Amino acid sequence: MSTSSSDCIFCKIASGAIPSASVHEDADCLAFLDIAPLSEGHTLLIPKRHVARIEEMSGEDVARLTRHLPRLAEAIRSAVGATGLNILQNNGRESGQAVFHVHFHLIPRRADDGLGYRWNAGKYAEGRAEQIRAAIRSRL
Amino acid sequence: MSTSSSDCIFCKIASGAIPSASVHEDADCLAFLDIAPLSEGHTLLIPKRHVARIEEMSGEDVARLTRHLPRLAEAIRSAVGATGLNILQNNGRESGQAVFHVHFHLIPRRADDGLGYRWNAGKYAEGRAEQIRAAIRSRL
Repeated sequence: MSTSSSDCIFCKIASGAIPSASVHEDADCLAFLDIAPLSEGHTLLIPKRHVARIEEMSGEDVARLTRHLPRLAEAIRSAVGATGLNILQNNGRESGQAVFHVHFHLIPRRADDGLGYRWNAGKYAEGRAEQIRAAIRSRL
Repeated sequence: MSTSSSDCIFCKIASGAIPSASVHEDADCLAFLDIAPLSEGHTLLIPKRHVARIEEMSGEDVARLTRHLPRLAEAIRSAVGATGLNILQNNGRESGQAVFHVHFHLIPRRADDGLGYRWNAGKYAEGRAEQIRAAIRSRL
């Protein structure tokens, strides 16, 4: 896997080739305001190294990135005066991922803001959950 | 903060007092199938220690939990044959959080499954992003 991808907009933001409204930066990661925010303060946290999906990252690399989430979440909520916050990370086009460089969305939330996940909960038929549980466990 | 909360259903699941279809367990965390899944294989990853929101966790505690995300995401997607996967973590009632014990949703996704985040993107007025950036940075 390359450390950057020449046609990746987040690699260009990470390198500074494209400017961003950054709120945190260190050797491994960058957090910056989404230019098309779902709400004021909507922030993206990315690894500087190019990687398309979370499944392609090591646990350590994910940990190095996500350790910033609590402090960022608190600062963002406080800055915009929001009471709630969603953290969202999409993998694959079918999931809504539009830029194929791993990013965690931090989305400030307020009551009745029209945002959120479409929550169409279902139910497992008798025995089905146990089948799926076994299928997942056999892959871990 | 107490290590468990007597009226918290996820604390009861973490202790084994309420059974769950667990797919991973270690000293710090538990991953189990959501009983009201948005899609087959919808899994929750929780810290065993009771904590309501991510802002109340240390970076290290978040890292210890989230390091399991890549391996879980891969196993879950593979087990149910899904191409995409959302990772979602809600903080506060206004965000959609229903159980006030930190949990990361892993939601397998397929094309046209009717799930996903409501994506009503906006735009910052001139100068507004810089104001918000400054407000966040001053809190970090």
